[in-house]
Amino acid sequence: MSLKPLSRPLAVVDEIRCRRNIKNMVAKASKSNTVLRPHFKTHQSLEIGRWFKEYGVTGITVSTPEMARYFAEDGWDDITLAFPFYRGQIDDVKQLQESCNVRLFVSDTETVSFLETNLDKPIKILIEADAGYNRSGTSDLTEMDKIVSLANKSKNVHFHGFYSHDGDTYKVKGQNQIKEIIERNFTLYETLKEIYPDAKFCLGDTPSCCVMDDFRMVDEISPGNFIFFDWMQVNIGSCSINDVGLLIKVPIAQVKENLNQLIIHGGAVHLSKDCIKIGEVLSYGQPVYFDNGNIKAIPGSYVESLSQEHGVIRGTNEVLSHMNSDHSVWICPVHSCLTANLFGNYVKTDSTILEKKILS
Amino acid sequence: MSLKPLSRPLAVVDEIRCRRNIKNMVAKASKSNTVLRPHFKTHQSLEIGRWFKEYGVTGITVSTPEMARYFAEDGWDDITLAFPFYRGQIDDVKQLQESCNVRLFVSDTETVSFLETNLDKPIKILIEADAGYNRSGTSDLTEMDKIVSLANKSKNVHFHGFYSHDGDTYKVKGQNQIKEIIERNFTLYETLKEIYPDAKFCLGDTPSCCVMDDFRMVDEISPGNFIFFDWMQVNIGSCSINDVGLLIKVPIAQVKENLNQLIIHGGAVHLSKDCIKIGEVLSYGQPVYFDNGNIKAIPGSYVESLSQEHGVIRGTNEVLSHMNSDHSVWICPVHSCLTANLFGNYVKTDSTILEKKILS
Repeated sequence: MSLKPLSRPLAVVDEIRCRRNIKNMVAKASKSNTVLRPHFKTHQSLEIGRWFKEYGVTGITVSTPEMARYFAEDGWDDITLAFPFYRGQIDDVKQLQESCNVRLFVSDTETVSFLETNLDKPIKILIEADAGYNRSGTSDLTEMDKIVSLANKSKNVHFHGFYSHDGDTYKVKGQNQIKEIIERNFTLYETLKEIYPDAKFCLGDTPSCCVMDDFRMVDEISPGNFIFFDWMQVNIGSCSINDVGLLIKVPIAQVKENLNQLIIHGGAVHLSKDCIKIGEVLSYGQPVYFDNGNIKAIPGSYVESLSQEHGVIRGTNEVLSHMNSDHSVWICPVHSCLTANLFGNYVKTDSTILEKKILS
Repeated sequence: MSLKPLSRPLAVVDEIRCRRNIKNMVAKASKSNTVLRPHFKTHQSLEIGRWFKEYGVTGITVSTPEMARYFAEDGWDDITLAFPFYRGQIDDVKQLQESCNVRLFVSDTETVSFLETNLDKPIKILIEADAGYNRSGTSDLTEMDKIVSLANKSKNVHFHGFYSHDGDTYKVKGQNQIKEIIERNFTLYETLKEIYPDAKFCLGDTPSCCVMDDFRMVDEISPGNFIFFDWMQVNIGSCSINDVGLLIKVPIAQVKENLNQLIIHGGAVHLSKDCIKIGEVLSYGQPVYFDNGNIKAIPGSYVESLSQEHGVIRGTNEVLSHMNSDHSVWICPVHSCLTANLFGNYVKTDSTILEKKILS
């Protein structure tokens, strides 16, 4: 990168690492005879979307009709809307159906009836199964049965299968704890498989998809974060720091040596306020060394606080010795999905711009 | 607003309340013979900027050269960059000087020398005074003296005065605690006034500007948040809930009555992950009743968690009785600056679009 002092915070994408992350997940899915339908909310970039296509990905997952439209215009024609469908989205969904195949999440019969009445052409639905995460979806087998029966009698609503995103894997640490959470999903899925042998079974979260060796009965996976990973995923145990594909490069605004602090131009509007507790420390980002193809956490340093545009890094000496020639430091973000969402574009490691949108 | 079910989360600006907030702050400043130079990072909107102009505001505050350029192109010609100037910004600052008067923050002599060497025309500097907040700036009187001396001998760097943003007022509650923090700023400012009787004294934060009856020796104030206020400011004691000028209207995605939860389409990418502790509860937003010109907090309810697009509201019955006819609820955001930064535009209460940019 340029030796000229950095003029603003940059979201830097490492194409080599991102492609490696895609390739690994595609290979892993393929080994289990599982289809990868990656969640594109993480990167929100047409060009990064095209990288996935090169590795054979044909179906994708997004979170809003607007995001679906953005990718549909680039030729994606098989898109899952991974958020509970609600009535206000009906016009957008109908418009989407003009250009691509859409799948929706439902968790009650009222929604199925509403879709049946209001759609002009068929749509696939996934029942959002809640195995214990307690966010959206349902764990009620009777309601699921009613949904499937209603869909089977319906003209426009076709039952495709079940989807579970178990975000509790984001709250634990290490393979064993993640695997315990995966098991509760499999317990539910095995019950459902007996009742609905023809249904497709889909799983959503990055930690599960990273630590499972074999996706067993799962037909489709839709992790998103794994394209970039982040400091949270490193700490959960989904990846190593050297796998992270999105780093934030921030200008140093002030060195406060007496306080062992660096003031950076990198605040909540760049990194987001997501944080993780590591030991006694609350970290809003991890300063890293990034050179010669390697990423390493700088020991004894962390982003200790964020305000709107200011960040404060604790651990000056260690960080300063890894200061770049352009008066900047590299930060591994805590949560790359939220961080990426805050930037209007990416910069690649060769300093070229990589287009993206903010589609939230 | 429309009775059609809401199709996506909206950032709704109440022009009447915003204008009242502007008018009140202008009147308050005027009473103390103090100039209001509002921080425009909060709203990032040219049209809202023009509202300020109607009340006599001529100088503004922003956080980046990019944001300055956006407002300069709309005719603002007196702009303070309220972030420590760093070397990488020099080209942007020089370009800005072509269209407006710029003021910069400095806190060391090296920066003054750098500006003197690299600028082609004069610029005003403010020494960022740190009265105890311990973020950026300096509390070192010797360094301040060196800066002023250097500026006095300089061709391009003109010493204008001191600026203090004491963000500790965001961490306290009630007028008395805020006033204690204000006093430490006045203690420093009174010392400095004796040494530099001709300097201008500027103060930055919304809580201080709201609770002070008289700005005393302060020549300029630059609060930003007060145009919108938010749930944090209500809890700090800067305003009442009925003063809030930015509410988020979110679609209800799922009602989970057995758990007293509502799942809303309103997550970290809409509200930001800023939160406040109220008693034992961590709140990511406050559901409110908004009708007939009144805003009231819905008792017993709060946003208890956020993921990327999902929000979970606790307290279903109370909230559901205030559900709007378009299947939505109103949320008062915890931190309106971060929330506003996440939206590509605003909607006014009459459903018209209010242009803004995401300029972080």
